[in-house]
Amino acid sequence: MEIKVLHQLMDWNEDVSEEVKATLAEHRICMVNVMGSPGAGKTSLITSLISRLKENWRIGVIEGDIAGQVDAERIAALDIPAVQLNTDGACHIEAMSIRHILPELPLDDLDVIFVENIGNLVCPAEFRIGESLRITILSVPEGDDKVEKYPLMFTDTDCLVLNKYDMMPYFDFDEARVRANYETVNPGAPLFPVSSRTGDGLQKLAAFLEEHIRSAAS
Amino acid sequence: MEIKVLHQLMDWNEDVSEEVKATLAEHRICMVNVMGSPGAGKTSLITSLISRLKENWRIGVIEGDIAGQVDAERIAALDIPAVQLNTDGACHIEAMSIRHILPELPLDDLDVIFVENIGNLVCPAEFRIGESLRITILSVPEGDDKVEKYPLMFTDTDCLVLNKYDMMPYFDFDEARVRANYETVNPGAPLFPVSSRTGDGLQKLAAFLEEHIRSAAS
Repeated sequence: MEIKVLHQLMDWNEDVSEEVKATLAEHRICMVNVMGSPGAGKTSLITSLISRLKENWRIGVIEGDIAGQVDAERIAALDIPAVQLNTDGACHIEAMSIRHILPELPLDDLDVIFVENIGNLVCPAEFRIGESLRITILSVPEGDDKVEKYPLMFTDTDCLVLNKYDMMPYFDFDEARVRANYETVNPGAPLFPVSSRTGDGLQKLAAFLEEHIRSAAS
Repeated sequence: MEIKVLHQLMDWNEDVSEEVKATLAEHRICMVNVMGSPGAGKTSLITSLISRLKENWRIGVIEGDIAGQVDAERIAALDIPAVQLNTDGACHIEAMSIRHILPELPLDDLDVIFVENIGNLVCPAEFRIGESLRITILSVPEGDDKVEKYPLMFTDTDCLVLNKYDMMPYFDFDEARVRANYETVNPGAPLFPVSSRTGDGLQKLAAFLEEHIRSAAS
């Protein structure tokens, strides 16, 4: 009898991901999977988006980290329901963890859940977690060659946020190169130049998200 | 009968790592495993170190990337033997790949091999590849919370390079926080503030490396 361990594992994650998706659909919640390198600015982007969205939408956050809870504390300080998911060494979040942790959030009172994935430009892209939407963040200091070097993360996303855009003058960063490579691996997908610090570009990104939140809610 | 798949895999990598180590010892080569996030500046640091070391030592490079060969081209342009190791999606290099690729380098004519690992602050730390020395790079734009959030990478290294140190004025980065956390997880291990761009701090790091190269060569 044939044994396919890896294949089974992947299928299994896909199954649980679909289950999570169904639970979220029942509650009309849009779940956003936020991915990017360590230090790309995932938490800052989420907090900036919370400021822009919280007037019209009820927001919850799942903070993924290998260890610690500094990020969940940052979110909770904004008076937003937040839970910390520690992977204890694992390099990505899997759907099973989301299924396990979802009941910790007040699902009947939420329109959108941001999931901050582990800082990693590789592994999280391979695991669906039941999300409605994926955001990949690339920050200017990381360099303009990342789409070529970590293609899956840019292929399998619904939008790309080019973060720390205000740092452009200090780095030798070829935006056209990123745009061209992104268009190659993910034709037609939107790219949002953003600075979480100055707030530039956040409005467009928030409007894009609101479309999806509205569609999940209806 | 008990079956321990994960444990077996880890042991297996450890065995091959020891094998690689023995091969390198035979050739009196110091192999340096360079790890860090995407965009931390691994390739730039390696090229800067090459400039400082190549007068006295014979250098080779193994460039790890998920896809592509832009980094190996940068190294080869310096007239240094370089091989590209593509992991085709995998998030770290394993010892087996190093064993496989080593014969592609002129081992009898090398004193030091730099291995640029996949840009990832998580997984590479878990896999020994037969290296004599590990360098973990953290760049200033990534933020000062990384040691707490990705502890293994900072625990299991022989030194920490704080790269893009010239960017300190533009980021809200608490160096004391990094130093304190690093000292907690890796007591006594050296930390080198470096700017590959300006060259600041490279001399001390190069001297540290030369000690190890000398010790492997003798």
